[in-house]
Amino acid sequence: MSFAPLRALRELFHSLCLRASVVKSIDTLATTTTMNRHIHLALIQHPCGADRAANIATTEAAIREAAAKGAQLILLQELHTSLYFCQQEGAATFDLAEPIPGPTTGHFARLAAELDVVIVASLFERRAAGVCHNTAVVLDRQQGLVGQYRKMHIPDDPGFYEKYYFTPGDAAPGFEPIDTSVGRLGVLVCWDQWFPEAARLMALAGAEILLYPTAIGWDDNDDTDEQARQREAWITVQRGHAIANGIPLAACNRTGFEADPGAQGRGIRFWGSSFVAGPQGEILSRGPQDAAEIILATVDMARTEQVRRVWPYLRDRRIDAYGDLLKRYRD
Amino acid sequence: MSFAPLRALRELFHSLCLRASVVKSIDTLATTTTMNRHIHLALIQHPCGADRAANIATTEAAIREAAAKGAQLILLQELHTSLYFCQQEGAATFDLAEPIPGPTTGHFARLAAELDVVIVASLFERRAAGVCHNTAVVLDRQQGLVGQYRKMHIPDDPGFYEKYYFTPGDAAPGFEPIDTSVGRLGVLVCWDQWFPEAARLMALAGAEILLYPTAIGWDDNDDTDEQARQREAWITVQRGHAIANGIPLAACNRTGFEADPGAQGRGIRFWGSSFVAGPQGEILSRGPQDAAEIILATVDMARTEQVRRVWPYLRDRRIDAYGDLLKRYRD
Repeated sequence: MSFAPLRALRELFHSLCLRASVVKSIDTLATTTTMNRHIHLALIQHPCGADRAANIATTEAAIREAAAKGAQLILLQELHTSLYFCQQEGAATFDLAEPIPGPTTGHFARLAAELDVVIVASLFERRAAGVCHNTAVVLDRQQGLVGQYRKMHIPDDPGFYEKYYFTPGDAAPGFEPIDTSVGRLGVLVCWDQWFPEAARLMALAGAEILLYPTAIGWDDNDDTDEQARQREAWITVQRGHAIANGIPLAACNRTGFEADPGAQGRGIRFWGSSFVAGPQGEILSRGPQDAAEIILATVDMARTEQVRRVWPYLRDRRIDAYGDLLKRYRD
Repeated sequence: MSFAPLRALRELFHSLCLRASVVKSIDTLATTTTMNRHIHLALIQHPCGADRAANIATTEAAIREAAAKGAQLILLQELHTSLYFCQQEGAATFDLAEPIPGPTTGHFARLAAELDVVIVASLFERRAAGVCHNTAVVLDRQQGLVGQYRKMHIPDDPGFYEKYYFTPGDAAPGFEPIDTSVGRLGVLVCWDQWFPEAARLMALAGAEILLYPTAIGWDDNDDTDEQARQREAWITVQRGHAIANGIPLAACNRTGFEADPGAQGRGIRFWGSSFVAGPQGEILSRGPQDAAEIILATVDMARTEQVRRVWPYLRDRRIDAYGDLLKRYRD
């Protein structure tokens, strides 16, 4: 009797084991790289009023509810302790600014510790007399304030007079993610969301998710078609950032109508619509336009690895030909 | 009798005239700047076969139909004279490459002159032995070949072995629009459409519209959810470029199933879905997934001026902080 069949069987088994081993290595690598993490995310969308304590109480109650539902990472809307005060320019408004660390960071840091969650908050920062910023802060469980991001792109258009209030962020090199217990967060703020450069720089620095506290809304005098295009553009351009970088993204926007305190403008109807998108830009969860809501989503952080293997844009960027991105205009 | 009412009436009239004059100046400026142009655009989406002459005849018949319907600018799909030959690597395939100017540019230049239209065509360019490109050419009415764009970002993934065939474009500084009788065209090609950098550089150089000849499709082994996410991501990221730059955009993709000639892969089902978007990313017109179609749209080139006044991103780019965009990765 020949031993050939047995040898063949052994070789086949050996070959299968080798293949299994290769497959296992790839799996292990993927698992190691991405740590197979799911993040339970909550966005706290609500209207704001003139009473700071009431605004903070509203936000806090929603954070407690989100944490009770399992949220680990909680994103607040832009300037959530006040009305959107940039509808007019007034020197007295600078009284709203506060230092970092300060009362708001202290309050939300205690809450983050108590609930064992990561909170991304947004405030009007007083850095020095005449130097104020629109700043997002990250409060990480027991660690407290682990990082901040000063808004880099500052808008200015009727009803959104932000260049008056906010000195543009000046961190060098800028657009740096913040490491937390739930991952490396690419925190940006509102107007930044229209700039693919900001999202790209965060992704290139290893951001695993993009987070945007936001305050954007309609002028009621625009017709409904224009309003629909604006809201859809706001969602679409951000989904585009998720796609171009293969990472998930969340934007938390306020809701409700706020009159112009100077009665010169027509007020702003903030359009809510906070949402979470996955790394292919797919919508995972979204909020209503006109009501408070806690938007919950579970983000599978392992999908970035898969998505970037299928469409590896970062491999193919033509960095040799991007020099003119540093110009204002190519004329 | 007092003259006060008459004086008041005169003052009111004067004031109204002044206001009307200001409004008129702004209108005049807008008209001058944008020349109040509407471009009638056509995208020629169809399946391709192995017969080059038949492919060209199909394309030509559709171009004639589009021109008869009033199209002034006609965008063809990527590599429209052949099957998508990059499904496998084979040295003999380089026989398909042709010079520029050459037979294809000659054919479509004659057609553009005859029909008095601008045609954006796409071909496999032989520049020298061992130096071939994936090149879009612009054929402008009586002027013939007025410009070309060699694809800058080259993909390579199973079934899309483009790095084997196409030398990356090396124009310096690169990403330069092409001036034509219908406007300044930002011509890019397929894989470029995933890179916000390419769109931005074209916009910064004054491109008035982005145009993408494309060949993208599904692997039938992917489930329908994954297929839907991929197609939607392809549309969304491009709408994002339109929004981020405030200019319209058109992408023309092939349709139909093409088997892998090497029978190693599973073939590609090109998903059609060619579309035109306006400067807020709004869809103006779109084609089917699985059939040939001439997609027509009228693009109002004056809207860029309006849209960029409302959301002036180019004003606020942080070019002082974008240096790391020239890095492969920020590590």
